Amino acid sequence: MKFELIIIGNELLNGKIQDKNIHWFSKYCYEHNYSLTGVQIIGDSRTDFKKALDKAKLTADIIVTTGGLGPTKDDITKSMMAEYFEKEIHHCEEALEITLSHYKRGKKEYKADKLHYPKIPKDFKALYNPTGYAPGLSFEFDQDKYIFNTPGVPSEFKSVVTESITPLLPSTDSFSKHVIIKTWRLPEVAIFSELCPDLWEKLEVYGEVSSLPHLLGVDIGIKINNANEEQKIIDLVNTTKLKDYIWHIGSETLEEVIIQKAKEKDIKFGFAESCTGGLCASRITDISGCSSVFWGSIVSYSNEVKMKALNVSSETLENFGAVSLETAKEMAEGAFVNMNLDIAITTTGIAGPGGATEGKAVGTVGIGFATKNKSESKIHKFNGTREELKFRFSQMALFTLLEQINEY
Amino acid sequence: MKFELIIIGNELLNGKIQDKNIHWFSKYCYEHNYSLTGVQIIGDSRTDFKKALDKAKLTADIIVTTGGLGPTKDDITKSMMAEYFEKEIHHCEEALEITLSHYKRGKKEYKADKLHYPKIPKDFKALYNPTGYAPGLSFEFDQDKYIFNTPGVPSEFKSVVTESITPLLPSTDSFSKHVIIKTWRLPEVAIFSELCPDLWEKLEVYGEVSSLPHLLGVDIGIKINNANEEQKIIDLVNTTKLKDYIWHIGSETLEEVIIQKAKEKDIKFGFAESCTGGLCASRITDISGCSSVFWGSIVSYSNEVKMKALNVSSETLENFGAVSLETAKEMAEGAFVNMNLDIAITTTGIAGPGGATEGKAVGTVGIGFATKNKSESKIHKFNGTREELKFRFSQMALFTLLEQINEY
Repeated sequence: MKFELIIIGNELLNGKIQDKNIHWFSKYCYEHNYSLTGVQIIGDSRTDFKKALDKAKLTADIIVTTGGLGPTKDDITKSMMAEYFEKEIHHCEEALEITLSHYKRGKKEYKADKLHYPKIPKDFKALYNPTGYAPGLSFEFDQDKYIFNTPGVPSEFKSVVTESITPLLPSTDSFSKHVIIKTWRLPEVAIFSELCPDLWEKLEVYGEVSSLPHLLGVDIGIKINNANEEQKIIDLVNTTKLKDYIWHIGSETLEEVIIQKAKEKDIKFGFAESCTGGLCASRITDISGCSSVFWGSIVSYSNEVKMKALNVSSETLENFGAVSLETAKEMAEGAFVNMNLDIAITTTGIAGPGGATEGKAVGTVGIGFATKNKSESKIHKFNGTREELKFRFSQMALFTLLEQINEY
Repeated sequence: MKFELIIIGNELLNGKIQDKNIHWFSKYCYEHNYSLTGVQIIGDSRTDFKKALDKAKLTADIIVTTGGLGPTKDDITKSMMAEYFEKEIHHCEEALEITLSHYKRGKKEYKADKLHYPKIPKDFKALYNPTGYAPGLSFEFDQDKYIFNTPGVPSEFKSVVTESITPLLPSTDSFSKHVIIKTWRLPEVAIFSELCPDLWEKLEVYGEVSSLPHLLGVDIGIKINNANEEQKIIDLVNTTKLKDYIWHIGSETLEEVIIQKAKEKDIKFGFAESCTGGLCASRITDISGCSSVFWGSIVSYSNEVKMKALNVSSETLENFGAVSLETAKEMAEGAFVNMNLDIAITTTGIAGPGGATEGKAVGTVGIGFATKNKSESKIHKFNGTREELKFRFSQMALFTLLEQINEY
């Protein structure tokens, strides 16, 4: 079953907001074994909406639209549906009930009769919205082909898809899985041209191969249709030179692998963060269940906090500067002691665009660690914008943490 | 000039990665006064690529594609361009130079003749790629209509657009600006149906109006074509009942407004974060120049760190629990003293999905503050997934910080 997602809203095309629905919906489709073949983002324009529907109908069995269901004039989805499928707008009692149920949840009193929520195109069904005012809509536009209209607010979109649309969709029982080989320290071109020139062909035996380069490494994916082939792929790559560059085989993220391995060894870890400004801790705490191994992070953005909360000496800061091997090491030692950790990881660097000093360019970062046996630090250099650098610094810190957990 | 962006890559449709280019590109177009009329995401499929190009050509003067320029078999952009525009693939010396220049930057030696980078469609021009191996491409597909092919890796995409494509585009000199009225504490429907039923019409006098509801508030945007109208809009809304719900008029984010106002009053602030796990600090440190007012954050995920680094008493934790008014207040007082702050803000709550206890559901959060005059805390309740709750908790914490800065 092929899905196409159409996202409506000027605010996504003029830079005002960042989409929060595409990634969630692509994971939803993947987990339910639906094929998401395309996503279109369009503005609040009737002409563009029509073109998007024309295109989606060429391929999709299920079209999902998000946005444009609100009460304001720029919300055109319902009138567009009526026009495109040649339906009149009529009053729908079920839609009114759905809207009123949200008023009740919020214990608010509004004059519902003023509002447009119960007015929907004829032959469309109103879908329960567990988290907002606007009902979703569904319509069979062709035999076994459906269009679903959902709100654009991410929490409402997700709840309407999960609770109101999913039960209407047939379940698929064919097996399909992506085996993902996660590597680091080599660029894509070095893997496939130099290290393992025949790897791609060997993997293609098991299913469609894809390669996804990203910071510090490459993810190689193989889509298999038979569960037994996963082990064969693992056995295969373990006989290649790529073996030493693999940090995980599976769909888990770096954060998830860290927490899982720390739990296995009963390790308490934490951070002392300067340039990453809390990002290392925030990435780890995105994972449910981290609290049994993640103890805390001291975000010491100012030198005063480095001294007061991490025991970094004023001499070290004066003699070597905040971005130095010495400060990174003392921060790690301070975090290790002050939070009673097994492994402390620290970051201190220059995320830019300001802050560069002689000999220390934007992108320079000191990454340190401390365990009960030793403490060490290294200087790394990256390129990028402030946002990219914060992420890259945190990525290097998390890889350093994974190495220390592996060695522990 | 109308732009359309086509993003190629299975990994964006099967949930493996989250797009990082759309939001950046939409802001880029907005800042350069180009109209981005649509975005399409497609898989590595020749049929879907053709449909996307067919659709984009209906509207766009400039088509930008990202992705599919790499050296692996799933990279189909160049062969697709050749097929679609009926060109042969040939060796291009400029493309080879661009690739070799990246090898030189990295001080690496590869056998470039093995690689496909210099092979591009005839009549296409190779574009310098400041950060990667693959050259971008440009082609005039119709009079004054261009297609640009760029790499999908965000840093490469941005640098090719900024450094190699921008100089080729004509500059537009017509004035256009979005005035954004940022409100909080009221839902969209309450603003436009109850509080100010005639606001939309009054604002439409000045330009196209849009309304963007989000957590804790609504952003109302007006696209003006005359710089003088901004002040008229400000004067207008200040005469309405909406006045008391506006926290900012302008395009600045909550983080930027906080830093700007803290700088004006020379306030040093910081956090003690439990459930937000570093997110408050990370959001603040995304803003360049925050270091003159943001001192640090003690992320005390474990009770041990709450006691050791924030002086929370074991009696408070035992008697009231970590998620309580009392703990939130003591955390704020500890952060205030231990980091030598003017304003300390704290979060302690249950982001879920586990961790709920009797009387304390997932979504419960204590938000506290401490200044030299007083310390207080409040319990708030939100709905959502773990990720959403972390963000909502941090949003409430940042609004509490803004209130404290305003009162300071």
